[in-house]
Amino acid sequence: MLPVFGHTNPDTDAVISALVYARLLTRLGTEARAYRLGELNFETPYVLREAGVEAPALLPDLPAGTAVALVDHNESAQSVANLTELTVTRVVDHHKLGDLTTAQPASLRFEPVGCTATILLALHREAGLTVEPADAHLMLSAILSDTLHFRSPTTTPRDREAVEFLAPIAGIADVEAYALAMFAAKSDLGDTPADTLLRMDYKVFPFGDPAQPQSMQTWGLGVIETTNPGYVLGRQDELLEAMDRARAQDGLNGVLLSVVDILREHNTTLVLSATEAKVLREAFGAETRDGRADLGGRISRKKQIVPALETHFTPQG
Amino acid sequence: MLPVFGHTNPDTDAVISALVYARLLTRLGTEARAYRLGELNFETPYVLREAGVEAPALLPDLPAGTAVALVDHNESAQSVANLTELTVTRVVDHHKLGDLTTAQPASLRFEPVGCTATILLALHREAGLTVEPADAHLMLSAILSDTLHFRSPTTTPRDREAVEFLAPIAGIADVEAYALAMFAAKSDLGDTPADTLLRMDYKVFPFGDPAQPQSMQTWGLGVIETTNPGYVLGRQDELLEAMDRARAQDGLNGVLLSVVDILREHNTTLVLSATEAKVLREAFGAETRDGRADLGGRISRKKQIVPALETHFTPQG
Repeated sequence: MLPVFGHTNPDTDAVISALVYARLLTRLGTEARAYRLGELNFETPYVLREAGVEAPALLPDLPAGTAVALVDHNESAQSVANLTELTVTRVVDHHKLGDLTTAQPASLRFEPVGCTATILLALHREAGLTVEPADAHLMLSAILSDTLHFRSPTTTPRDREAVEFLAPIAGIADVEAYALAMFAAKSDLGDTPADTLLRMDYKVFPFGDPAQPQSMQTWGLGVIETTNPGYVLGRQDELLEAMDRARAQDGLNGVLLSVVDILREHNTTLVLSATEAKVLREAFGAETRDGRADLGGRISRKKQIVPALETHFTPQG
Repeated sequence: MLPVFGHTNPDTDAVISALVYARLLTRLGTEARAYRLGELNFETPYVLREAGVEAPALLPDLPAGTAVALVDHNESAQSVANLTELTVTRVVDHHKLGDLTTAQPASLRFEPVGCTATILLALHREAGLTVEPADAHLMLSAILSDTLHFRSPTTTPRDREAVEFLAPIAGIADVEAYALAMFAAKSDLGDTPADTLLRMDYKVFPFGDPAQPQSMQTWGLGVIETTNPGYVLGRQDELLEAMDRARAQDGLNGVLLSVVDILREHNTTLVLSATEAKVLREAFGAETRDGRADLGGRISRKKQIVPALETHFTPQG
């Protein structure tokens, strides 16, 4: 039974891609089971309920040498702690290729599209398999989630085509209304503790040139995508305290938390200290005032935040 | 014009996959051109002549930042010298994933099949493209070459199916006879200098744990696949001298040259010194006598030689 899982602090794509890929592999003759590497965010349970699908279980400890399949990530910093001891036999992902290596030839399927689920739909078609309504519902939801309903600059024509193809199978007549309901569920943060809010969509990135160890820095980059940014920004002081704890706990050089207004397509980033403020000024030309920096329309961590930080931290040859 | 190229010391699959992938990308709307990273072996010109296709040109120097596509390799030690300065946007490969990283999401297609061309055939089918007779001839030849006409343990059912599918399109009625002619061309080594023979199918591998730099070793592993092993082994003294020069020139910890009898499926490996002899004893249980070790049916460097050396050199946790 091949374990399939997405990244830590799972978002909707990470959870759903594990579910859909495990089912696809099983239909193709490789028994597989989906797992998650952390608590669900507020959007994913809504999607699972609408699709009538159970949430995957938390990944148990896996002994060294276990064969595993990764979806929606490939960097060890975003995966299970003992990833380098496991045998990665399959990856489906839409992120840049990080420090992953394999001991044997493996099946790797990376495509620069907006969502892992878009690749999974292609895998169904290539295998000549029909898409089940529940899988269609899940994949469509992941694509709307990852692309913020096509607002993100990571969106490609293939993501749009996939949603068009999947909507009738999923029985979703009004995609716009469904996306808004999904985003509302995601934004209904209630009295979630600040530490949980910070960690909900949070990834740790190494920056710099590994060949020059003194240039290496590790940053934690959180994102809260919401239709109700006022609520999140109203909790700025608590969130800054949570960021400070995260920095100490994870031994980071810097922590940023971007509050992304989904509907206005705008990024207000919480800035922990002068260290982060300096980097934001140099990498984005953004000034920090009262613990916040206006990053304008940069709503994609993957496409607009991480590449600029990479350039900033890579020593110039 | 996207440059597409295979590994240094190109074998038939490296050259042909570059040609076929460049043509496929161009048909799909991405203008691409194939290149090679070194001189052709004795088999590839035979294949190109039979298919009526020109050899690709040597790759010119590429300025930093140039977008490139890799086929049939991914490790920097087997690629163009300034690979880390280039922008890898596409890879099609059937080897283990090495030290490759990408700055942006890319299209990566790795499958554990016997030949890159087998994956390229799948890409044609997925795109709904017919296979041109010349491309069919090239892909079939690469598969026969890489799998030693299905003798290699790297062979998968998909490689066999691909050849069955391609043979009628290529107009090759007797695949067995064609494979033998290909292998005969490859074995007709004439008065090729020993240094050239050694380097014809030669790859450099880092072994050990990068996190423990003192455990790292770099080995050069050459293979001569031939239907006439007596001729090659008759030049043992010259070849050992060439191996000694290679070790000094490339700053290697060890050099091995496996003479693979294609038809008998047997590997006789030339052993440079006591260092290599010790490793062969410990990793394969093979004794060296008179500069040679009998590695029996281990005819695949990728599947039978490299993994055993990796295990041997990786420090036990």
